[in-house]
Amino acid sequence: MVHNDGFRALDRQECLRLLGKVPVGRVVYTRHALPAVLPVNFSLDTDSSVLVRTSARSDLVRAVDGVVVAFEADEFDAATRSGWSVVVTGRAHVVTDPAEHERLLRTGPDSWMPIQDNVFIRIEATMITGRELTDLRAAR
Amino acid sequence: MVHNDGFRALDRQECLRLLGKVPVGRVVYTRHALPAVLPVNFSLDTDSSVLVRTSARSDLVRAVDGVVVAFEADEFDAATRSGWSVVVTGRAHVVTDPAEHERLLRTGPDSWMPIQDNVFIRIEATMITGRELTDLRAAR
Repeated sequence: MVHNDGFRALDRQECLRLLGKVPVGRVVYTRHALPAVLPVNFSLDTDSSVLVRTSARSDLVRAVDGVVVAFEADEFDAATRSGWSVVVTGRAHVVTDPAEHERLLRTGPDSWMPIQDNVFIRIEATMITGRELTDLRAAR
Repeated sequence: MVHNDGFRALDRQECLRLLGKVPVGRVVYTRHALPAVLPVNFSLDTDSSVLVRTSARSDLVRAVDGVVVAFEADEFDAATRSGWSVVVTGRAHVVTDPAEHERLLRTGPDSWMPIQDNVFIRIEATMITGRELTDLRAAR
């Protein structure tokens, strides 16, 4: 579907495929009553939830455990003025189940940042929206 | 300053210089009581505020006019597992002064998206924070 604002809405499968292409996304949440955003490495779990590895005592864990957050990833190309963005919205929670934690230590996301006391945050993929911007000059 | 979490905090001048390098950032705000995030083209005004061009009837205008938002830009390189991110936090408002609007039509940010009834949103640079991640494997 092409909207008259020049974007094409992406369906859930397209969104998940695109999320699998990039190593970094951004957790969007509220900290001290202000909007906050933090780039993180992530991976998708088999149920399409977003997994993030962080440190047990990180600000992020305190701010998002049990709270609805947004997670965004995108890719844009300045040369062609095109790209895509996907937003996952859902409740975040720290993985506390020991077996699950073990599984994620083996198969979960890596982090480019140094981690102390690995903790995994899962963001439920309750709502997934995405849109694609194509080069409008070419379409004219 | 190098934090023990592997990040180097960037000062305001470094943040502004990096923001000048990229064409796309992300407005982080609240929509219908949920965290929301939207990639946009932007430019920096002479007072370091962030300028965004959008359509008069866009959801963004309704959601952010008069409200404190965050604005984030970043650049990461998967090959070197390094990069930077900068967050500007401040009140957003629609530019209503006719002379200012005229100036921004000439000198303000372009948009890769088609725009109907150009409106400019200014995000005050009340707080600017940034951090740089260098390849930790190289430092070991």
